[in-house]
Amino acid sequence: MPAYMRATDIIRAKRDGQALGQAEINFFVQGVTDGSLPDYQASALLMAIVLRGMTAEETAWLTDGMVRSGIRVDLSGIPGVKVDKHSTGGVGDKTSLVLAPLAAACGVKVPMMSGRGLGHTGGTLDKLQSIAGFRVDLSLHELRVALEKTGCAMLGQTSEIAPADKKLYALRDVTSTVESIPLITASIMSKKIAEGIDALVLDVKTGRGAFMKTLDDSRRLARSLVDTGNRSGVRTEAFITAMDAPLGRAVGNALEVIECVETLKGRGPKDLEDLSVLLAARMVFLAGLASTPEDATRQVRDALASGAGLERWREIVTHQGGDARTVDDYSLLPSAPERHMVTADRGGYLRVLDAELVGRATLALGAGRAKVDDLVDPAVGAIVRAHPGARLSKGDPILELHYRKADDLEAALALVGRAIEIGEEAAASLPLVVEEVR
Amino acid sequence: MPAYMRATDIIRAKRDGQALGQAEINFFVQGVTDGSLPDYQASALLMAIVLRGMTAEETAWLTDGMVRSGIRVDLSGIPGVKVDKHSTGGVGDKTSLVLAPLAAACGVKVPMMSGRGLGHTGGTLDKLQSIAGFRVDLSLHELRVALEKTGCAMLGQTSEIAPADKKLYALRDVTSTVESIPLITASIMSKKIAEGIDALVLDVKTGRGAFMKTLDDSRRLARSLVDTGNRSGVRTEAFITAMDAPLGRAVGNALEVIECVETLKGRGPKDLEDLSVLLAARMVFLAGLASTPEDATRQVRDALASGAGLERWREIVTHQGGDARTVDDYSLLPSAPERHMVTADRGGYLRVLDAELVGRATLALGAGRAKVDDLVDPAVGAIVRAHPGARLSKGDPILELHYRKADDLEAALALVGRAIEIGEEAAASLPLVVEEVR
Repeated sequence: MPAYMRATDIIRAKRDGQALGQAEINFFVQGVTDGSLPDYQASALLMAIVLRGMTAEETAWLTDGMVRSGIRVDLSGIPGVKVDKHSTGGVGDKTSLVLAPLAAACGVKVPMMSGRGLGHTGGTLDKLQSIAGFRVDLSLHELRVALEKTGCAMLGQTSEIAPADKKLYALRDVTSTVESIPLITASIMSKKIAEGIDALVLDVKTGRGAFMKTLDDSRRLARSLVDTGNRSGVRTEAFITAMDAPLGRAVGNALEVIECVETLKGRGPKDLEDLSVLLAARMVFLAGLASTPEDATRQVRDALASGAGLERWREIVTHQGGDARTVDDYSLLPSAPERHMVTADRGGYLRVLDAELVGRATLALGAGRAKVDDLVDPAVGAIVRAHPGARLSKGDPILELHYRKADDLEAALALVGRAIEIGEEAAASLPLVVEEVR
Repeated sequence: MPAYMRATDIIRAKRDGQALGQAEINFFVQGVTDGSLPDYQASALLMAIVLRGMTAEETAWLTDGMVRSGIRVDLSGIPGVKVDKHSTGGVGDKTSLVLAPLAAACGVKVPMMSGRGLGHTGGTLDKLQSIAGFRVDLSLHELRVALEKTGCAMLGQTSEIAPADKKLYALRDVTSTVESIPLITASIMSKKIAEGIDALVLDVKTGRGAFMKTLDDSRRLARSLVDTGNRSGVRTEAFITAMDAPLGRAVGNALEVIECVETLKGRGPKDLEDLSVLLAARMVFLAGLASTPEDATRQVRDALASGAGLERWREIVTHQGGDARTVDDYSLLPSAPERHMVTADRGGYLRVLDAELVGRATLALGAGRAKVDDLVDPAVGAIVRAHPGARLSKGDPILELHYRKADDLEAALALVGRAIEIGEEAAASLPLVVEEVR
């Protein structure tokens, strides 16, 4: 790095549309991490990045700088190939709880660091914590022990992982600089790369309930994520998948856990099962445990049919301190006292069940967080009773709301009313898996 | 204003290229002024404004908000029309000290709030303070008294004037968000409008030594300044004038004061005299004291020829506590101990004498500030001995440097070397007055 570097020169260069060098990007990331760069300079640069963009090379450097703001976990002492999955977030998007035990049952080591829900999308940690006793605050030592014992560890991001991301995200959140493909890429990939994984499968959601609403933006994000992962030595592949309506039927933490266990028992909704198998199979393939993707799919289907995945789930829950009796007795999970069924107000085809609005409705019931420090109610949520494309008669059930307070129900119903569209003809919809990006 | 407004929504709107409303702009300006808006949000919005721009309406609202962050001085109790001049800044740009006494001698009331020099351009306050005793820190009461007594007050911006500008400028300076026509417009015009003037003449510099290097940018700035002034009820006209080479001959504080007094005595450089007369005449015309611009010019020329302007200068200096004997005895002004003559290293035409580099050379000698809290040496500077277009023989004088320390001279000479270009043919140059913008 040059002896003398000025923040204003770096900001000016990006403002004027120039590509930054690696030393400049490191100066920025280090300054944010150690607090030597004032927030007002960081936020001016962030806005310039949002509006001017970054090249693939700059994005990789930013990601690398953020990885090196903390530690890159060394899992090389643990035998096996370590593979994780990351989803850009959706409503009812619960594949982690299904695919992690399936992939682990097939021999993949799955060190899965997840986030909490924020806004209309749920978070894996919140779902896991609806199981009494389940510990997600594992130390890096406990991560290793879990990987050796059960082949899988499901935990929150530890403070050693990409501390720059935590600071940058907090600043982006309050300066309207979240929506930027290079910044999103560096945030996601720095945390994943720092986990110490060898390969990564990405589920990039597209549609009404996704962060990226258009297929074009989803493709650009997928391309950026895949390129950045591969540049850093983590073999990365992505699927772009549909998120116009909720995935599966359950939305809400305990309800989603039940649906995942049902899926591991072979009784889950087809879309959730198919997507979980697809992602788990790609993890198996990238781990080098199968000669072809088809062979990997067969292994995962076998683990599902044989109950090996369900057994592995039981072991993971037990190892992390959770009550594994919940696998057989769902009444041990939190449950909301009240139910309300939303029904069709006319006959016709269900054209739209807007995932974002359903997500916001369950948020209104208490299932998620509007702010980082909000408390989550694990019991509340919704069960989808009719998916888009369904032929409905007047009065047919569409969405069952599980709630606690009448006021919350009212707020949720206002959102659900806007989420549902019934018409004379069925609407066209995206296939579940839109395309692959490698 | 709506009951509830969020900074992030305002930043997002500008980021996405939308025009802001007046309430949103006021929220921003008030938040910056009272400190309720964090700097990191202000700087993100500033960068979005730099890159997305502002409409004329938004610029006027921003200016208005900044005026109303402090007081708008009420000078209506003082008889006469109050007119000021503002220059966007240049090297050797000293017209204020010539035109203010000339316009006042013609009956205009001139409440002139000026700034200090920063970077390669000089500031009127620094020039005035090379006169022993000259007080520029007048209160608003003293401003009124001076206007009544001498028709002119030359002072620094008081704390009551556009406090938002002071805070915003400090933030822009450290976040590379200075270069923006709407932000520059609001900064300049808020201070001028708040002075309580009825009309304003602008001298928008263009060229190597100007803030705006291209004629196109200078035109856009002039248009924005004029429109914003007129929208706020201050009759505003602008001249775009050449700033490729220094104006007049002197660069440096005491040297410029001497040149101004010489000009008021009728012995000044032609370009300085002509531009000062032009600007003063437009002030007289906008004050309604002349039926045509030609009539105004005649009045100003008369004030110059009769010595009325010089007399008025003596009165202004005396009234503001300065030593008026300096008018007749330049040895009472600070003077540098050393001289160095830069001469032509070959014969030919002087094609370029780069104003910015000459300005930076005098800065290196101590004539200005690189940082706000630097001390200024009033004695040092340069005298231009040959203007662009001059036919030179080898050894002919070009620039006489007045300096104090050998180290400073060395630094200045490195810059001067790059400022001078001698060639076989004379270069084309802009006329002094390029065009008018009303």
